[in-house]
Amino acid sequence: MSVRMHIPGVSDLTAENKSPFVYNQWYVAALSKEIDDQPLARTLLNEPVVMFRDGDGEVSALADRCCHKALPLSAGLVEAGGIRCGYHGLLFNGAGQCIEIPGQAIIPKRAMVKSYPLQERDGLIWIWFGDEQTPQPTCDAPNYPVHNDPNYVWDGDVYHYQAPYQLIHDNLLDLSHLGYVHLKTIGGDAKIHMNADMKTTTEGDSVTVVRHMPNVTPPPTYSAAFPFKGPIDRWQEIDFQVTHLKIWTGGADVGSCDLNDPNRGGFHLKGFHGITPESETTSHYLWTMATNPALERESVLQKVIDQTAFTFDEDKVVIENQYRNMKQFGNQPMISIHVDSGANRARLIMERLRTQPA
Amino acid sequence: MSVRMHIPGVSDLTAENKSPFVYNQWYVAALSKEIDDQPLARTLLNEPVVMFRDGDGEVSALADRCCHKALPLSAGLVEAGGIRCGYHGLLFNGAGQCIEIPGQAIIPKRAMVKSYPLQERDGLIWIWFGDEQTPQPTCDAPNYPVHNDPNYVWDGDVYHYQAPYQLIHDNLLDLSHLGYVHLKTIGGDAKIHMNADMKTTTEGDSVTVVRHMPNVTPPPTYSAAFPFKGPIDRWQEIDFQVTHLKIWTGGADVGSCDLNDPNRGGFHLKGFHGITPESETTSHYLWTMATNPALERESVLQKVIDQTAFTFDEDKVVIENQYRNMKQFGNQPMISIHVDSGANRARLIMERLRTQPA
Amino acid sequence: MSVRMHIPGVSDLTAENKSPFVYNQWYVAALSKEIDDQPLARTLLNEPVVMFRDGDGEVSALADRCCHKALPLSAGLVEAGGIRCGYHGLLFNGAGQCIEIPGQAIIPKRAMVKSYPLQERDGLIWIWFGDEQTPQPTCDAPNYPVHNDPNYVWDGDVYHYQAPYQLIHDNLLDLSHLGYVHLKTIGGDAKIHMNADMKTTTEGDSVTVVRHMPNVTPPPTYSAAFPFKGPIDRWQEIDFQVTHLKIWTGGADVGSCDLNDPNRGGFHLKGFHGITPESETTSHYLWTMATNPALERESVLQKVIDQTAFTFDEDKVVIENQYRNMKQFGNQPMISIHVDSGANRARLIMERLRTQPA
Repeated sequence: MSVRMHIPGVSDLTAENKSPFVYNQWYVAALSKEIDDQPLARTLLNEPVVMFRDGDGEVSALADRCCHKALPLSAGLVEAGGIRCGYHGLLFNGAGQCIEIPGQAIIPKRAMVKSYPLQERDGLIWIWFGDEQTPQPTCDAPNYPVHNDPNYVWDGDVYHYQAPYQLIHDNLLDLSHLGYVHLKTIGGDAKIHMNADMKTTTEGDSVTVVRHMPNVTPPPTYSAAFPFKGPIDRWQEIDFQVTHLKIWTGGADVGSCDLNDPNRGGFHLKGFHGITPESETTSHYLWTMATNPALERESVLQKVIDQTAFTFDEDKVVIENQYRNMKQFGNQPMISIHVDSGANRARLIMERLRTQPA
Repeated sequence: MSVRMHIPGVSDLTAENKSPFVYNQWYVAALSKEIDDQPLARTLLNEPVVMFRDGDGEVSALADRCCHKALPLSAGLVEAGGIRCGYHGLLFNGAGQCIEIPGQAIIPKRAMVKSYPLQERDGLIWIWFGDEQTPQPTCDAPNYPVHNDPNYVWDGDVYHYQAPYQLIHDNLLDLSHLGYVHLKTIGGDAKIHMNADMKTTTEGDSVTVVRHMPNVTPPPTYSAAFPFKGPIDRWQEIDFQVTHLKIWTGGADVGSCDLNDPNRGGFHLKGFHGITPESETTSHYLWTMATNPALERESVLQKVIDQTAFTFDEDKVVIENQYRNMKQFGNQPMISIHVDSGANRARLIMERLRTQPA
Repeated sequence: MSVRMHIPGVSDLTAENKSPFVYNQWYVAALSKEIDDQPLARTLLNEPVVMFRDGDGEVSALADRCCHKALPLSAGLVEAGGIRCGYHGLLFNGAGQCIEIPGQAIIPKRAMVKSYPLQERDGLIWIWFGDEQTPQPTCDAPNYPVHNDPNYVWDGDVYHYQAPYQLIHDNLLDLSHLGYVHLKTIGGDAKIHMNADMKTTTEGDSVTVVRHMPNVTPPPTYSAAFPFKGPIDRWQEIDFQVTHLKIWTGGADVGSCDLNDPNRGGFHLKGFHGITPESETTSHYLWTMATNPALERESVLQKVIDQTAFTFDEDKVVIENQYRNMKQFGNQPMISIHVDSGANRARLIMERLRTQPA
């Protein structure tokens, strides 16, 4: 099965009357740790947004444009009561209403900027992008209890991609590339990855891919972080949702546990991957990685984060290179191979949801 | 009052059948000090021009393109009799006529390039951009006696802006931004700037804005340059013309002079601002600053020039940021506030004059 | 005579229904020394190509795009049997056929990429670009025996130009520019170059320009490389072919030989110039320079190569500057002068051959 993917600069979206993005979703806008006393500017789904934390620690998101002279509010100053423009000092509260025009007594009603629904949960800041019929959220933002699990330590980062979100989905849903792309960290024998037992399931708008690799040599990152005795049984569990993925992987000494038992022991890497389009052709990739060290928690975490960052840098090189080449060659056919089943199912979901114009 | 501004990349000029620039004007092309024995290349109103000084010290401006192979003449050599192309040695005089083709006896009549009317006055080099009906100047270029006033010392520089000229006009006609943008140099208490007494007058194609701020603390640049005793009476006089502005500001010890008396004492900063479009979306900003130090004229001038440059750098950051954001957000409404009256009147003048296609 | 040249960004090709390039030609794709155990990626005539040398030393050229996920194959690894994609490990042989999909038994027939006819001769790698009717070469690639002549030593390099190939042709066919552009190396008195005796001949799709400059001072590069006694008789012989030029120049002590005798003595510089379009507006310039030192062959070669590189850098500056200016000014008339005859004839040939759409 080969699934067409509508990629800007490669195939023509307009002709299909599709929106470039899927709307009526919570997207990850930022990691909580990114927003302190400075404003954070980030373009999301083509909309430039400024996020800031008020005096009560509440995070707000506004259109990043003063309604007076169109300056980015993100170039201004955060105050307890809101954000103040750096050109003439207009002050806006978290709802987007202008609450002060220096030197002018009357504030016109239309002195306001768009405000976005925002929820901060478990160390992640989620923003709602609705369509015209559904500007307000229809549900709460997803939770992610791993970030509060005392057995785990975690950290994360935000990467910017010169590539559309679909190619990042493809990459994360097909871990067989580990053997060729990530040999130095989480890879290992390429043939084993390409031949791993794999089970793909679709349910609603989500896709699950489970891969088991029993009795294999632990890859460098695993050995560096965990005292395995020798060969291990390895697992990879991918849970794709429209705006984010969970990829939980790990390994345990051969035969020491049941690979299908969610409470199994061993070394765990629980990855969270928020994929938020910046534009049709560029993406934000907001990731966290959690692990369960028995001892030396902070130093093991640092090792894991360093190697994860190194690994994700490798993916970024590959995916940006791929997109550059797709634009260069235009809309030429691609063939599918055995490892593409998860990615192809996710594409079908995204294409279906994008059929609803915003 | 809110005044629409037709900005390329933001609103559609073509639909309005307007020229992007105002023609039949003298624009500042260069500061005299910029042109020595080397050619100076500068694109003005979308036309690439080379300026050079001949053996008699006379400055000429030609289209920057050899009529043989289209090389920029500015990559050639200035000689006493003209400018010589660096590819095959064709020599052009200040009128644009080719006067030598090495190795060829006959010079075809059409071996010539366009020449522009130029006048050098008071340290400024002015160029005439006429429309088809008025290729030659209808008046002399403006003079600027301040540059020859023995009580004043002055210097200047040329800045390049990634922003259209209209946004620089806006900025210079509304000095209320000093309190937020220029706190470190010529600013001071923001509220005082936003609340300053302001009088705006239109006469023909010019606008005057006069602002008085009695009994205020002198800002850093003022204190550094002049021995004030304490609080001062401050004035700001803005004179907008289509291609340039004069902004004369200063201060005197409280109550020591009449703010309306042109011969008043105290500390004076006389700024000249030539705003010459490079293209619809980029601009040249040619400025000079003159001051009247009682003592240590050269060191005070240096301080004033350094702080002026620092201040204008701050404006450049704001205005380029503003234009980037305007393009990002497109043609969305802006609200006007009390300080916009001068800028709005200038916009009306520019929009009216641009209605005449070139 | 002035010859119109159809240059992208300057004049409209589409309106003329012409192909941007001349097809059914052997173009220089690389110097042999460029391809060792690493793949070489180069876009030629708008087609991204990967070249690599297999275990037998045979060079192949494939479309630089894996048929699975569109990754550039040039980001993969060269193996004895072909090139392996760096994403999922698909292996392609020199004919473009996929010969291994890791983890998958069956390889679909359509798992292949385009392969290009290639010939390696005399240190040059030639690639055939045919039209739809003539995908396979109709002749062998040109030879260049100078590279195998024991009396000569040679080396070369590949330059990238931000300019279309036509402007490089112009430059090489008109050596009168040496006096202005290359004063420091191979130039000399500008007037002598502009007044040199010149004979231009057209034969089929080739043009020959022969220039003689008897009894002149040797230029810096000549003096540095050869022990002339005093003034020299200088010659320049240019042989233009559609995809490359030979420019053989040199000098001998005054009166010591017949300038028309191909076996004359003296100092010889035999230049080879492959001009291969990267796109309509950018070019590859693959050059070699051979010389015949009596003694100290390697050090003389090094001097000659260094000065040649310096000289060609000067040309690159001029030509890229010229093209920038042509785009800036658009399609304005150019005048021809006496030295343009060779270039004008070459343009006629190129325009005629480009009339055949690919």
